Amino acid sequence: MYDRIKESFDKQGLMKTLNAKLVSVEKGEVKISSEFSEALTQQHGFFHAGVATSIVDNACGYAALTMMPEDMEVLSVEFKINFIKPAKTDKLIAIGKVLQSGRTLTICEGYVYDSSEEKLISKMTATMIAVKK
Amino acid sequence: MYDRIKESFDKQGLMKTLNAKLVSVEKGEVKISSEFSEALTQQHGFFHAGVATSIVDNACGYAALTMMPEDMEVLSVEFKINFIKPAKTDKLIAIGKVLQSGRTLTICEGYVYDSSEEKLISKMTATMIAVKK
Amino acid sequence: MYDRIKESFDKQGLMKTLNAKLVSVEKGEVKISSEFSEALTQQHGFFHAGVATSIVDNACGYAALTMMPEDMEVLSVEFKINFIKPAKTDKLIAIGKVLQSGRTLTICEGYVYDSSEEKLISKMTATMIAVKK
Amino acid sequence: MYDRIKESFDKQGLMKTLNAKLVSVEKGEVKISSEFSEALTQQHGFFHAGVATSIVDNACGYAALTMMPEDMEVLSVEFKINFIKPAKTDKLIAIGKVLQSGRTLTICEGYVYDSSEEKLISKMTATMIAVKK
Repeated sequence: MYDRIKESFDKQGLMKTLNAKLVSVEKGEVKISSEFSEALTQQHGFFHAGVATSIVDNACGYAALTMMPEDMEVLSVEFKINFIKPAKTDKLIAIGKVLQSGRTLTICEGYVYDSSEEKLISKMTATMIAVKK
Repeated sequence: MYDRIKESFDKQGLMKTLNAKLVSVEKGEVKISSEFSEALTQQHGFFHAGVATSIVDNACGYAALTMMPEDMEVLSVEFKINFIKPAKTDKLIAIGKVLQSGRTLTICEGYVYDSSEEKLISKMTATMIAVKK
Repeated sequence: MYDRIKESFDKQGLMKTLNAKLVSVEKGEVKISSEFSEALTQQHGFFHAGVATSIVDNACGYAALTMMPEDMEVLSVEFKINFIKPAKTDKLIAIGKVLQSGRTLTICEGYVYDSSEEKLISKMTATMIAVKK
Repeated sequence: MYDRIKESFDKQGLMKTLNAKLVSVEKGEVKISSEFSEALTQQHGFFHAGVATSIVDNACGYAALTMMPEDMEVLSVEFKINFIKPAKTDKLIAIGKVLQSGRTLTICEGYVYDSSEEKLISKMTATMIAVKK
């Protein structure tokens, strides 16, 4: 399961650009981190919301994928994200968790924390769809 | 108005990383583009959804800012985005438009198109908040 | 097309309870109204947000249904709604419009206006799914 | 705290119309139920999604209100809701929980269960705003 997701993850140019690492893969839960750099900032020098959003969208997508048969791929249908605290940290930790898994659609909850995993920075709810490879 | 937004835009490390350009600024409407590169891809080699999301979030935020007094800044409270078509294009064009502007909150609609501005790739609705600088 | 939707609409107990009427049905666009009564209020005596939400969800769902084959039904996957102005009016007018129609999923935009159809009260984006009857 | 919310709840004509009861009020968490009747149905005879949405929006709003000073009121800015399972039950139980409470904005998570409180029917994320009475 890890290998299947790692292979897809490594093909994503953006994940490399965002200093993102695939931290862990469990059935229904995936964790991705992003190391801070000046290339990832908004106008005040903190992490741009787009970085948090990109990695937690991926974490949700891959969490959904852990519930799907081997011949399926996952696409984001839509998501909503609330920005709760400023992303002042040296590393973002994004966790995607499956809330409900169906044959076609999977609903995931996504959380973005600071490096201590104690401060909740953003909260996402995402709808994912399974498509034939 | 353009200068105020250009100055903020240029401070965003992520916008440079995403090959993003501030295309136009009008009262209530801002356009931002992103040129394709392999550093911005998902696993199939197209633009990652995170790129579209990041630039249209910014376009919405700056559109909101055009309605706010000079001593205010804008923050994204939350947004929802639907992914409608694959982002197969050499340039993404994101347009943020103010739907309703209030003293505290501003609601924006965001659109991401391909380089022809004819194919709608993503649609966002965002809630922005004005905060004192 | 009108008959197909009118038949489904009339089976919804809640639509009667909300004084709702199916105003018009066109390909990709459906309009539903709700007449004010004290049974539909929030604590200040205006229309409850739940009334606006219920009729615009239905308007979006039926708008999606106008794009689907006869043997399909429509279900709401999810929606997001922004509340823009207080619902101070004697009649709510909800309009659902198809933004993008696919074989499985349809994305709709929903608008709730006051009785003059000039004041925008709420704005929805909804994801609908086609299911076999 | 209960009295403050019960008084507001009882002024809502729609809550009576939806057979809704204020079940419990704790700091940061409010529970509201709705008893099934044919006046609350969609076209298949189950609870209409609009009923679930209306009571969980209220549960989230009142949960937010428990965190606010006495001279403030709460309004829904926006919410997103996913419909996870059909609402086939004799009673809906909606629970609103504060995720993050700020001076102006409060983010809530809302859950709608069947009467056993074991089957998750819908999941909401809502943004609430505090306004002076």
